[in-house]
Order: sequence, then structure tokens, then C-alpha cells
Amino acid sequence: MEGERHRPSRPVPALTREEKVDLLDGSDFWRTRAVPRLGIGRIMLSDGPHGLRSRPEDADHLGLLGATPSVAYPVAAATACSRDVDLLRRLGEALGEEARSLGVSVVLGPGVNMKRSPLCGRNFEYFSEDPLLAGELGAALVEGVQARGVGTSVKHFAANNQETARMSVSAEVDERTLREVYLPAFERVVTKARPWTVMCAYNRVNGEFASQHRWLLTEVLRDEWGFDGVVVSDWGAVHDRDKALAAGLDLEMPSSGGVGRDAVLAALDAGTLDEADVDRAVTRVLGLVAKARPALGEGQTCDEAAHHAPAREAAAASAVLLKNDGVLPLDPAGDVPLAVIGEFARTPRFQGGGSSQVTPTRVEDAPTALRAAVGREVAFAPGFTLDGSGDTAALLAEAVETARGAVAAVFLGLPDSWESEGYDRDHLSLPPEQVAVLEAVAGAAEQVAVVLSNGSVVEVEPWQRHAGALLEAWLPGQAGGGAIADLLLGAVNPSGKLAETVPVALADNPTVGNFPGEHDVVRYGEGLLIGYRWYDAHALPVAYPFGHGLSYTSFDYRDLEVEAEGNTATVSLTVTNTGDRRGAEVVQAYVSDREASVFRPERELKAFAKVDLTPGESARVRLALDSRAFSYWHTALRRWVVEPGAFAVEVGASSRDVRLRAVLELAGEAVVPPLSADSTAEQWPAHPWAAARLREVIAGTGTDAVLTDPEAGRMVRAIPLRRLARFPGSPLDERRLEETAAVANDH
Amino acid sequence: MEGERHRPSRPVPALTREEKVDLLDGSDFWRTRAVPRLGIGRIMLSDGPHGLRSRPEDADHLGLLGATPSVAYPVAAATACSRDVDLLRRLGEALGEEARSLGVSVVLGPGVNMKRSPLCGRNFEYFSEDPLLAGELGAALVEGVQARGVGTSVKHFAANNQETARMSVSAEVDERTLREVYLPAFERVVTKARPWTVMCAYNRVNGEFASQHRWLLTEVLRDEWGFDGVVVSDWGAVHDRDKALAAGLDLEMPSSGGVGRDAVLAALDAGTLDEADVDRAVTRVLGLVAKARPALGEGQTCDEAAHHAPAREAAAASAVLLKNDGVLPLDPAGDVPLAVIGEFARTPRFQGGGSSQVTPTRVEDAPTALRAAVGREVAFAPGFTLDGSGDTAALLAEAVETARGAVAAVFLGLPDSWESEGYDRDHLSLPPEQVAVLEAVAGAAEQVAVVLSNGSVVEVEPWQRHAGALLEAWLPGQAGGGAIADLLLGAVNPSGKLAETVPVALADNPTVGNFPGEHDVVRYGEGLLIGYRWYDAHALPVAYPFGHGLSYTSFDYRDLEVEAEGNTATVSLTVTNTGDRRGAEVVQAYVSDREASVFRPERELKAFAKVDLTPGESARVRLALDSRAFSYWHTALRRWVVEPGAFAVEVGASSRDVRLRAVLELAGEAVVPPLSADSTAEQWPAHPWAAARLREVIAGTGTDAVLTDPEAGRMVRAIPLRRLARFPGSPLDERRLEETAAVANDH
Repeated sequence: MEGERHRPSRPVPALTREEKVDLLDGSDFWRTRAVPRLGIGRIMLSDGPHGLRSRPEDADHLGLLGATPSVAYPVAAATACSRDVDLLRRLGEALGEEARSLGVSVVLGPGVNMKRSPLCGRNFEYFSEDPLLAGELGAALVEGVQARGVGTSVKHFAANNQETARMSVSAEVDERTLREVYLPAFERVVTKARPWTVMCAYNRVNGEFASQHRWLLTEVLRDEWGFDGVVVSDWGAVHDRDKALAAGLDLEMPSSGGVGRDAVLAALDAGTLDEADVDRAVTRVLGLVAKARPALGEGQTCDEAAHHAPAREAAAASAVLLKNDGVLPLDPAGDVPLAVIGEFARTPRFQGGGSSQVTPTRVEDAPTALRAAVGREVAFAPGFTLDGSGDTAALLAEAVETARGAVAAVFLGLPDSWESEGYDRDHLSLPPEQVAVLEAVAGAAEQVAVVLSNGSVVEVEPWQRHAGALLEAWLPGQAGGGAIADLLLGAVNPSGKLAETVPVALADNPTVGNFPGEHDVVRYGEGLLIGYRWYDAHALPVAYPFGHGLSYTSFDYRDLEVEAEGNTATVSLTVTNTGDRRGAEVVQAYVSDREASVFRPERELKAFAKVDLTPGESARVRLALDSRAFSYWHTALRRWVVEPGAFAVEVGASSRDVRLRAVLELAGEAVVPPLSADSTAEQWPAHPWAAARLREVIAGTGTDAVLTDPEAGRMVRAIPLRRLARFPGSPLDERRLEETAAVANDH
Repeated sequence: MEGERHRPSRPVPALTREEKVDLLDGSDFWRTRAVPRLGIGRIMLSDGPHGLRSRPEDADHLGLLGATPSVAYPVAAATACSRDVDLLRRLGEALGEEARSLGVSVVLGPGVNMKRSPLCGRNFEYFSEDPLLAGELGAALVEGVQARGVGTSVKHFAANNQETARMSVSAEVDERTLREVYLPAFERVVTKARPWTVMCAYNRVNGEFASQHRWLLTEVLRDEWGFDGVVVSDWGAVHDRDKALAAGLDLEMPSSGGVGRDAVLAALDAGTLDEADVDRAVTRVLGLVAKARPALGEGQTCDEAAHHAPAREAAAASAVLLKNDGVLPLDPAGDVPLAVIGEFARTPRFQGGGSSQVTPTRVEDAPTALRAAVGREVAFAPGFTLDGSGDTAALLAEAVETARGAVAAVFLGLPDSWESEGYDRDHLSLPPEQVAVLEAVAGAAEQVAVVLSNGSVVEVEPWQRHAGALLEAWLPGQAGGGAIADLLLGAVNPSGKLAETVPVALADNPTVGNFPGEHDVVRYGEGLLIGYRWYDAHALPVAYPFGHGLSYTSFDYRDLEVEAEGNTATVSLTVTNTGDRRGAEVVQAYVSDREASVFRPERELKAFAKVDLTPGESARVRLALDSRAFSYWHTALRRWVVEPGAFAVEVGASSRDVRLRAVLELAGEAVVPPLSADSTAEQWPAHPWAAARLREVIAGTGTDAVLTDPEAGRMVRAIPLRRLARFPGSPLDERRLEETAAVANDH
């Protein structure tokens, strides 16, 4: 961290005031401004992050660029399930190389917002309902991209958890919830991977636009986390450019056509904005341009084929085998005919709509890949159309005939128009005509495996009883078809673990009544209880829990050791592949503080690791738990606190499949809250020094009798002593209480 | 309503400034101050409202009064289940008569706070989780008391829904939730029954103490609802006396010993408080003293026996028969022996702890009443002690032997120390030794009926399978023993209906993670979803739903007619007693607006009526639904709005036993929100006049193409036009948008 983060780290070059202010605005949709007379070039930012969307909306002006094809990787909702930080880093490196080859200096991503509601239309772009998971994976992607000399823009900072009214809605969230749920993924990415830029969100947070939220953009992001890069607006997120600048937003994108500049100049003239704010932002923008320079320059190329392979690997590592009665893996050499049903197999839905949508370099489909792999007939019938049109009955009949007596892989999913950036879903169902096809096919086929294509969870009840196996493939990118074939055939062993809970029904979810809000306000009423934290706190059944995912092999967990040191701990255990196939397991460590003085979630993911084991092989897995793994945000002290006492560490294969459990004692920190006359009849006697003073004053009085009586004392413990002092005949005195409290606080 | 409510309605008599300020403070624990030189007397206020607690804590000073015995009526949690406004009015009259006889001028009650969490220790003093029900019953009680020339103090205003940290905690509640859930019971009592006083709550509401919350005490209570009485502090609720006075708190109780007077005088001297505020409050206090005068004067007596009878009637009408496999009513003349098990039968828990606790004039117990009624042996064994002490095994063995082969009525409940004013529960279980006795007795007895004594709900799983019948008697007052005997024997037919949901488990309840808050803040995160509204929205199973209650007879519902007039409706239906006993049924009408533009609860109670029918008798029940029955609080407009369209009216015997359903169409009010440059790409085209202007401006541009494209248009609909104007190449202009909006709003 820099010592003087708020001071320009180098002098602003000889720019005029107007040139400086101009530098804080885009020059067009995608590029910063150049100052040719000083040799300051412009750099290009590009949508991402599942592939590069170098298709500027002012393509007419840029001519040469047009809609450049680019590898479409699996979306974040998918790669999150891989839980493989090394994979994410490699995907980042690939993205970085592609960006270099296209002259892109900043890839706009990753998105590390939390999946507060499964209805959010942009959930496919986000990793998880868990902040640790999103933060670790986001950091890995940032490290990968930036290792190639290209910047990233972690987004959308912060509390951008819905699309409905996203440019006006105020997320009403208390600070503890922000600190423990909605900010930690950003904090982890910023402190661990040092992204070149952070992108502010469209929405308001507790009334103020994120684009001009000083507490978020300066106090938390820079002063606390040490961020020293550029804060860029989400495209069109700026409301009052001068206030945004003062709050810490450096660069407005896209070009405001002079509106932003005029506002800044007017505020400078009026004296409501300090020129130092301009200089600081200019210094940061120039720093970004300078950082980008080495990767520009010479024409660089990128091997498309070499990038398609990791896309396929990632897609396979990201799919989650939710259920399997033995139908999977398919037997390529078997006698039973193979059939593929569902338009999604032939016309894969491999990415989501909006700013992350890319023009793929090619698209694999599963039937083609399956045929190539098994070397025999694989029948296909679409069963339905993607938009539900067409002769539904005829399509269904054809599908039934195609599947009759076969092992059928039925590809179902959400149509493009059902989930997208820009709007939210209002239910979690699959299209009814698809469910009808599944039911009919299940009646005719020998066995059925369902493959799902969707960017966020769907309800699987009641139709999943028709599926012997259920493979959640998400939106797997352009190589998804091949990856799914690999998984169905067992060429790759499934290893994905859910990064979001699959609830039984929408009505179970934590945001019922609190999503998407109304009249531009949304209350985060569930507080800390996002995702599995909610389902656990309410002891609700779920269809599939957070962290769940099957394999074609099996794993044994044993020999848990938890070693505490200070307020940190090291967890180690042995995992053994007890099946007959190579496979990877994601070991998950959850922490719970059940004796806490405040409400805490039942269990929270605090570490994970993925281990790849051959049959019979064992590995000793070590997981580090830092003090934050045990702490909570103390809203009165406004800092992290580890409470003294016992914590449980649960290690398992999902949040509801705990295999090993240990309890450790941490010294923690005994918080003595400052005393005042308003402290209560419970707080005063608990203060080590003040208790004795209080006893002297009330000795022998009715107040003493009441406070020390077990029953009566319990009834009055919530009374502030200042109020007791007011009661007729009280031995207490308000002024004396204040004096005693002051002395006590110095003790 | 008075025309000039804020002006003194009569001149303040010739009081000195100090005399006036003194009048705003109590003279001791229970009485106002007199000004003998002007013939101004003092009046006494007394705790209630389930009986009079005329046992001042400065009894030493008052000598004569001491701990006067007084009839203990069923608590509010019980009488709420009677759903009988006439009964509540008669109880009020009885209370009023007792108050007169004791020289009490104001009975401190009723408490109409909502049961936000079943854990709240003071729930027994509150009516319901439903604001309409609490408001109707509270109003009836107030009408009854005040009909006898004695005042009431509806309490605790407002959002006092927990005991933990009750004097410091801030209830964080959005305005719509306050308006639709936490304020309507007060509103109904104030506007319908005009209580002489309103008591402010201890807690803070959105940061400010209720005792000095101007919006609550003046803007809402007086300006909107037309309250013209005295606002009195809860005992010890005053924080800053001068701010409280300015906010609308007239009378501080108990005496502050001069602390309050000094603060007011200092503020007057400093000019931070207006003497008009003092005059206004003095006028109100003098008005209260004057209103009380007629009922004082001559010595009045009260016939205790005549009041015990309504106490018994109320207890019987309030009990809820949750479950009955036929064991009830007991056959008084049968051959099977009768046994009563459980210490609660011999030592009834008939009231709750704290300020509402009275010294009863006598206490009936069920075994004695049963023996008297059946004229044969009724065996008894305590089974357990109230505090769980003693030889548990021996007590259990004795109970089993006593119950062997008998029909056993097993009396279980919560010990006094488990629920009380002053603290909250942290679980909903019965004491385990009681459950053990039930299980053992069930194994030996012929049949088992369980009778519950508790002030707020308990979990009935998994033990209720041991009970053939389950009678929830609540805390039934001093005549509860006789009333329970009447119900068990069928001398009275049960007719109570739950005023609060019995959840399956605590983990199901709406306040998990949000109760009782921490560090003096509690978030009302569940918003509107209190009680059954929550269980319905989440489609959660419950043990017994809101409104549930069985009878020894049966009722048929038919011929529903719903007639709309303007935004009101009249509901009528025919109810028939189809059994062979006289019985009373509570007909409940719920309203639901499922096409609303904002989130609305699945169904809300909007009317109810209790009808008493002989076997075979029918009655036509008419229920009036005013416009408030259909409206919601519009947070942007800050007023009630009925949306146009279809509403469902569901009539049934509980919130989950809907027997009849009709849909009506209301004209409602089409709200056109004011337009601004910040209105969105969805709101502008929806404005009748501005849409055309917008079309002219964007005709033929890319903006037009995007907005009118079905897919793209859906993605951008949340964008404020001011932001679109900022995008490169936009045909829109910020200033012109503002001008157009201004004209549109005048159209």
C-alpha cells in the first residue's frame, strides 16, 4: 500500500485544466482520450469477461474492428463450480493474450456480485452466493489476465444484485451485511490481485449512487483496502459528475459528450470541487495508460485453437452432476441405442445476453461430439423449439419415437430471452413444453439423463423424478458440446460443486417480499442470510445444497486435525479416492461460531481446495484459516472482532454433507464496550471496574435489591442506568453516572 | 377532529411557568400533580389491562392502597382468540367499574403491539400478529372502559415488539411496513374509540426514541389520526424531556424528581423550546384531569362476584381447541375413570409477569371444578413441579399410575420465569420434564387430552402425537380453571380461533436472524411478512394456522355474495350450524391483490364476525370492507392507494381453510407518477402525454430502434432517460427532458 494514497504519486504533466478534465471522460464508447501534443495515447477497454466483446457500439467510427470473433469461455456461474483457482488463472491468461492481440488494455470483469436472488437476470455473470468463493475465483482470473500485461475491472462495486431498476434502485443494506456478504469478494480481489481498475455499480447503496458514494469508493476501497488503481463508471452510471469525482470516481465511460466535463468545470469554478480531486484522478488515469503501454505496441497474435482447448477443459470442470442412479457414464460400446433429445443439444445455449455476449470462434454441439467419440449411431430429435413455437405435438411425438428403447440424453434449459442482463426472471421454472417432452421421453426410453443449460438455477421439482441422472452444464461456452460429451461418456469425470443452492421452490428463497423492491428501494431484509446461510438458518430442505456435486468415483475423508495459532488455524485431513476412476474432489471447510454474542450464520465457507486423485490414492489436504475466517463485523466498534471461545470447523463434500468436525478454542478478543450513563443494568455490572463503583452507590437500597434478585434482575436488565436514576427514590444520579463512566472508560 | 388541534382548546389557567412545567411530570409513581391553590386535583393511573394492578411501588407513601386484590381476566393473547368485540367491550366495562371503585382514572392499556416474533416475552399482553384483529379488539376494550368514565392508555406507541434492549434498541422499519403492519392497530383504536391517552414506547424507531419522535407523536398520531388526548410516557421512557415535549409527549411518568422540569425550564430559557409547547401539553393534561373528575368523587363499590363471572365466560370463549380426535368433550357420566395430570392444573398459571400482574380476588382450579361438575372421582397427580425441581422420576411414576386406564387431561405449560415482561424467550419448547410426563402418561392412559397454559405459542412437535386432543387455554385469568372444566366437559363449546400462527418450529419464523437484533439495532427485515403473511408467502407448513380453532359442532359456509361500491365492498354469506350442539363460529374474510404493481401479502384479514348458532340454525353474515381493506401504502406518494383491477375475497374458518372465494373488480386509482429526466425508458413511454413528445424526438434514431425492439427494449427499460442522453450520439438532451417532464406533470 502506498503511504500517501490520496496524493498524486507523480506530478500531473503540463496539462491545461480543460485537458485534465477531458482525460476523465471517454473519447468514445470504448476508449479513453489521447493528448497527442504530450504523447499521451488512448487505451481501449472491452466488455468481457467470458470472452472479449470487441464489438464497439460505434463500430461505424472504428471501421476495422467490427465484431471480432473471440473464444467464448464458460460463464462465471459455471466456472465457479469448478472451484479451481488454477483453472481460473489460466482462463485469465488466455483472455489476457486475446486482449493483447486485439489491442484491448482493460477487460471489463470479473463480476463478483453476490447471487442474492436466483431471479437476478445477470446471475450467470456472477460466481456465487458465497463471498469467499467469488473472491477467490475472481482474484485468480484477475491475476491471470494481468499476468499478460492487460488490466481488469472488477465489477460492479457494490450491491448490484438485480437488474430491475438497476440504474435507480437503492439497495438498503446495513453495514454488517455489506461487510460480511456484499463487499468481501471485492475486498479479496482488490487486496489479493490488485486489479488495475474497479467498476462502480449503477445502483444506489443506502440512498447514494454507487458512482458517487465516497464511503464505498474512497474510504473502504482506497483507505481501508489500499486500492491504488482507477475507478471507472459502469457504462452510463454517472449521475452528478462533479460529486462522483469528489467521491473517488476517476474515469467516466463512455464519453459523456462534454456533459461530464462541463459539470466538473462548473464545480471547479464554483469552488464546490477541489482541483486536487481532478489531479488525483488524472494521475490515476495516466498511470493506467502507462501500465497498459508495454502490452500494446507490436502486433501480437493469438492462437484460437490453443484457446478453444482450455474452454473445453473449463466447461467440463464446471458442470455439476446433481444426481446419478447409474445411467452415467454412458456405455459407448453398449448394445442399447443412444439418443439425444432437445433443441439445446443441436443449438447450444452457451452464453448469456448483454455486455458479456461474444461472437464465438466456433461452437461445438454434443450430438456431433458424441457420435465422433462412440463411433456409432446417436439418434437426435429436437423435441421442442427454443422459443416454444412450432408444432409442439409433432415435435414431442418425434422425440418419443427417437428415444424409444434408447438411453436418452435430454437437453433442457432456459431460452435466451428468459434470463439476460437488463431484466430479472419472475419464476424459476423451465418452459412447460420442455418438461412435457421429458415426461413423454421418460415413458419411452430405457434410461434418461437430463443435461441442463441455464445461467442460474431452475426448479427441478417435480420433473426430476423422470431423470435417472441430472447434469447441470450451465452456460458452458463455445466448447460446451464437446465437454458435455466428455462428461456423459466418462472421458472426463465430473467434479463441479454447486456455487449456489438449488432450492426446492422459489417461495423458499430469502428474498421473498424483498426482491426486486418497489419505488426504487430494495430492502436487504434477509441480512447475512444469503443462499445456504438462509436455508441452514431456517432448516429448510433444498433440492441440492451449496457445494454439492457427484463424481463417477467416491472419496473418503479422515484424520482431521485443526491446529490453532493465535486467532488463526490450520486444518488438515486426508482424502482418498475410494473408487475405480480418477477424479477430483473439492474439500470444503465451514466455520461456525454457535456461542456468539451476536447472530451468526449456522456455517460459512472459509476455505476449499480441489484435489485430483487416481484410484486408491490419498492426499493430505491443508487449508489455512486466517482470523477473518472466525471474525464478524462489530457494528458498534465498526471493525472485525474474533470472539473468545469455541468454534466448530466442519469439513465436507457439501454444506450439508459434513464428513469431519472439530472444535477449537480461540483466545479471541474480549470486547469491553465503552460505558455511558445510557449503559444498562446488565452492562454496568459486567464492566470490570465500574461494577464495584455501582455496588457502593446502590448498597442497601431498593435498586440493589431489584438488581440482585434473580427474577426481578432479569426483568430490569435492559434499563439504562440513566433511566433508573430518574425513578422516584433512586440512589443513582445522572451526572455521577456520567463521571463514573468516563473514569471507567479510561481504566 | 378539531379544526386547530395544535392550539390550546381553552386558555391555560393562571399558572406560573414553573407550575405549568410541574404539571407535565408525575407527582409520584402513579399520580399526576395537583395545584391546590387553583383547585386542580391529581389523578391516578394504574397498570392493567387484564385487571387492575393498584399496587404502587411507593406503597409506603400511599399506605391505604397497598396491594388491592382485583379480578384477573384472561390476558390479551387469550381474549384475542375469542374474536368477540362485544365480549371485549364488556370486559372493558367491568375494568372501568373496578377502576372507579379504586379511584383510578386511567387504566394503562390495552397493548396493541404486533407479535413480530413468538419469542417476545410480552406477547401475552398483546392481541395478535394481525393489525386489524388487534385494532378491533383494542378499540372494543377502550370503548368499554371509557363508557364507565375512566380513561385508557393504548400502548406502546410504536414498534415495541421485543423486550431485549427495549429501552435502547432501534426498530429499523420502513414506512410501508409501519403503515401496514405496526401502526394500523393504534390507528384503529385512536380513530374508532378515542382513548384518553396514548402511551409512547421505550424503544427507538428508525434511530429516534419513540418518546421524542415527532413524526409518530404529532404528525401521524395527531395531525393524521386526529388524536386530541394526552401522550404519556411509558414509565421511564423519557430520554430528553425537552425534545420529548416538543415532539408531542405531554406527561412524563413516573415523577422524574425534577430532572424533567429542569430540562424543560433550561430549554425554555435557552430558547430551544417554545412556551406554546408547554401550554399545549398543560392544556391536554388539564383536560384529562377534568375528564376524570365525574367518575371520582363519591365512593363507588364494585361487586367482585359479578366480575368473576365474565372472567370465566371470557376464559372459555378464548381457549382454542387445536386438535380433537373425539376424546373431547369428556363424558361426565362414563365408566372410564377421569384423571387430571400436571401441576398446572392444581396451581394454575393464569397471568403473566410484569406490570400487568394483579393480585387475584380468587383462583379457580380445574380439578376442583371438574369434580364439582361430574360428581364423581377425578384423580390428580402433579407429574412435575413448576420449576422442574423435585424427584422427577417419582412424580412421573405417580402420574402414570394415576392415569392408567383413565381418560387423562394433562395440563402442560410454560413456567412463569420462561416468559415475562422484561426479557424474551430464546426457544419455543415446553420444559422437557413435562413432555416426558405426557409421553409416559399417554402410554398408560386410555385417552389423553392436553391443556396448555402459556402466554405465547409453543412448539407442539413432536409431542402432540401423544395427545388425542389439544386445548390451548393461554393464560386464562383467575377463572380459567372453571372455564377449562366447562370446555373439557362440553358445558361450553370451544369457539376460540388462533390470533397467532403456531409454527412447526422456531426456525420457520420470519425473524430468524433479525430478532432481537444486536448492538441496539433490530432490522424488521421481513417487512410486511409478519405471522401468517410470512408462512403463506413462503408456502411453509405450520402446526396450526392463524384463525384455526375447532368446535364440538360443525359449520357450513355458502352463498357468498360480494358487492362492490366505489372502492368498498360488502361481503355476505350464509353460515349454518350443521352439528348437534350450539356453537359459535368466527367467519373470516381475507383480501388479496395478486395483480398488484408492488409486493403484497398472499392474503390479509380484513373483516371477521362471530356468530352463535343452535343446531341447524343458519345466519346471513354481512361484512363490510372499506377502501383500506384493498389499499396499500404507496411509499413514493406517501398515501394509501387502491390499485385498479381484480381483488380476491376469501372467506373461511382459518387463513388456510378458505371455504368461499369471489373476485371483484375495483375502479381504484390509476397512479401516474410524476415524470422527470430521471424517469426511465419504461416510465416515459407509459406517460399518456410525454410518450408522444418522446417519440417525436427519437424518431428514426438508434435510440428509437433500441427502445422499440422487443428484446433490446426489455434490456434497456430500466435506464433513466437522463443517462441515455449522456450516451454518445444520443438524440436526447438533458435540459429538454427536464422541460418536457415539467410540462407533462402539468398535463
